Amino acid sequence: MNKFRKILALSASLAASASLHAAPVPADAYSIVADLTTEVGQRLAGTDREAAARDWAVARLKALGFAKVHVETFPIPGWERGEEKAMITAPVPQKLAVTALGHSGATPAGGVSGELVYFPTLDALKSAPDGSLKGKIAFVDHAFKPAQDGAGYGPFGQPRRIGPIIAAQKGAAALLIRSAGTDHTRDPHTGVTNAPKDGAPLPAGAVSGTDADLVARLAAKGQVMRVAVTLTPRFTGTVTSGNVIADLPGKDPSLAPILVGCHLDSWDLGTGAIDDASGCAIVTAAALQASKDGQLARSIRVLWAGSEEIGGFGGQDYAKVHAKEPHALVMESDSGADRVYATEMAFAPADKVLADKLAAALAQMGITQSLGHPEGGEDVGYTAVSQKTAVIDLKQDATRYFDWHHTPSDTLERIDPVQLQQNVDAWALVLKILGNETKAITKLP
Amino acid sequence: MNKFRKILALSASLAASASLHAAPVPADAYSIVADLTTEVGQRLAGTDREAAARDWAVARLKALGFAKVHVETFPIPGWERGEEKAMITAPVPQKLAVTALGHSGATPAGGVSGELVYFPTLDALKSAPDGSLKGKIAFVDHAFKPAQDGAGYGPFGQPRRIGPIIAAQKGAAALLIRSAGTDHTRDPHTGVTNAPKDGAPLPAGAVSGTDADLVARLAAKGQVMRVAVTLTPRFTGTVTSGNVIADLPGKDPSLAPILVGCHLDSWDLGTGAIDDASGCAIVTAAALQASKDGQLARSIRVLWAGSEEIGGFGGQDYAKVHAKEPHALVMESDSGADRVYATEMAFAPADKVLADKLAAALAQMGITQSLGHPEGGEDVGYTAVSQKTAVIDLKQDATRYFDWHHTPSDTLERIDPVQLQQNVDAWALVLKILGNETKAITKLP
Repeated sequence: MNKFRKILALSASLAASASLHAAPVPADAYSIVADLTTEVGQRLAGTDREAAARDWAVARLKALGFAKVHVETFPIPGWERGEEKAMITAPVPQKLAVTALGHSGATPAGGVSGELVYFPTLDALKSAPDGSLKGKIAFVDHAFKPAQDGAGYGPFGQPRRIGPIIAAQKGAAALLIRSAGTDHTRDPHTGVTNAPKDGAPLPAGAVSGTDADLVARLAAKGQVMRVAVTLTPRFTGTVTSGNVIADLPGKDPSLAPILVGCHLDSWDLGTGAIDDASGCAIVTAAALQASKDGQLARSIRVLWAGSEEIGGFGGQDYAKVHAKEPHALVMESDSGADRVYATEMAFAPADKVLADKLAAALAQMGITQSLGHPEGGEDVGYTAVSQKTAVIDLKQDATRYFDWHHTPSDTLERIDPVQLQQNVDAWALVLKILGNETKAITKLP
Repeated sequence: MNKFRKILALSASLAASASLHAAPVPADAYSIVADLTTEVGQRLAGTDREAAARDWAVARLKALGFAKVHVETFPIPGWERGEEKAMITAPVPQKLAVTALGHSGATPAGGVSGELVYFPTLDALKSAPDGSLKGKIAFVDHAFKPAQDGAGYGPFGQPRRIGPIIAAQKGAAALLIRSAGTDHTRDPHTGVTNAPKDGAPLPAGAVSGTDADLVARLAAKGQVMRVAVTLTPRFTGTVTSGNVIADLPGKDPSLAPILVGCHLDSWDLGTGAIDDASGCAIVTAAALQASKDGQLARSIRVLWAGSEEIGGFGGQDYAKVHAKEPHALVMESDSGADRVYATEMAFAPADKVLADKLAAALAQMGITQSLGHPEGGEDVGYTAVSQKTAVIDLKQDATRYFDWHHTPSDTLERIDPVQLQQNVDAWALVLKILGNETKAITKLP
């Protein structure tokens, strides 16, 4: 096509788009992240900021040409952050940068103070006799090193998830942990804790990597350490969260749709750029990019889930509400904005040809196949399990992700636009192949 | 010398050192930074933490074998940080990471709120008519890019230094600025402001680079912005600061000493590792390293100055108290812990041979000569000017320095031990040549 004919064709296509109310328009993933983080900001689950984010999402998805854009609400336990202070008072006064862990209990308004008992690992805390930390404050220091696959988050996230329950068993008045992060800045990392079986949760906070280094150096000197901690978060009762759902209808409504998920809620310390505005931007821009040369055969449904951070409530609600609707395959983006380096696929043996076609296409982008078991994530994983759908994970480089995850620094500045677009390109490639697959995709065995 | 004889000689030298109470012992610069930041922490001028740092310094310098270790106190205006909060309230609620600038005035306890008026530069603020910001809060956004020589700190530090005075002239209720820093983290940068000629200083704070980016993006949308600011620092009256001074006596007391300076005080947000525990560690370790093969001809005096951050009070007091004592040459380390890349020297023409010898020795380490005019700094510069001494600056790579300068992240983690030791090696090389120069060093013209 020569230049002139190209311009004519483009004009015609623009005119056609303008005349169709709901024609999909190209989306720039970076703009979605920039606008959501700037025009809404933090979107803590169950707050009015998450509600504002849903309004924003509905408007944006409609403007981008998605169909059936709507919100499905559900109840969640509300929790809001209060005052956050911690200070070593002996052997030397040193302020600690601290944040309350999600669903942490509260200290009295004036805080608690007591001897700090240093545990180098969660196992060391587990080994302490029950009741031995009466009136004391436990500190768990557990290393977590950067890795492409973010492998440390499972084991080294455990002090955050179950540490408060264990410290309570030992009688501690509060728990402080080294943030479940890989950085050495002054940013503490928040994140949800498991609920105790009975009773109120222990006040529990995370200090920054730098502050944990300081605690470790002081502990190594062998002197008695004391610490004062004030954390005043509160549970706000049952509040409303919600999922935002939007479709790009396929030409053949008899084909089960592909579900692509991310989460709209964020922690409240930063503006949730890498967790998970970028995921929503990637799946949305990719769905549009896959369709830009013409309507796909199969529908793509976009799920911007609510309340992922505090326990996957949005993904659970979606799976329940849409249990009777068939889904062909699920995918999720929730590991930041850095490049896709590998894929993991779960297809029934009957779909080997399709799987091989996808792998070959991704290999052209330098994306390898990994042999792990893909699970989607909190937003689409419940649907995958209950409906036994096929699953594709596009694994993102997480080397930097846990430097910023759940911190005040999770902001637009962390987004590398080139790597973000590489995600969109990889996703669009996959969605175009899947979207034009007119053979039914088989359930997993 | 063969290996066995070398071991014998080493043993003899260690025995000799142990038997002499005040024999200089080798110092590891990293240990000085680690111990000062861990065992004392922040050392805000005029507070009991600066006093604790002086006690620590006296003990450490004595333990390292310095002579005449003593403190010289002087009065300063005390100032302490209070509550620090800022939040954009319109067109969208967004929390800002803010810190009060040094010697900032205070808002009422409940804060001030008003329209945010965005100025892309300090010149734009200067151009606003007097009184035009009545009841409003000025925001000055002024870029500052990293550079090896830290050149941006002069011009782009001006919104911090004089911005509050100018904003007050325009009638503003408070001033917020983009931090005078080169990073895009959530860390705000504090730093001292110039005192107004009359009246109380304006409440003035700096927001982090990330938050300034957000303000700029919102301002670009053209909607009215509102902001709420609470800053409650207070002046605490006249308080005591002090210099710590220690000598490594030379063999020839008739030779004027070399003065090597740094500052002991720090801002209160971090633990002052790069500003300026590293400077004190460098000059101290270097003086000992220069003397390790035998006493120098000329004395080296180490000055760990107090109250540098809030206006160079320590350097001024030293120059006044020691005005009658001759000094041969001054040097200062106060640009972090990264490598020395160039030197600037101010010698009288009579000392060209010495200057050339120093330049040739530094060139062996890959350190070039730069043609700027060396000034020392706040700690030794007053002495240099009043006594017209020779001056040597060993210029440090400041590319990363203004990422962390005056922030909560100025902690031990910012120190690269290899680069820190390169500083010590360069300084020791210079001090050994100067210390063994038995010809008088001429005053500057």
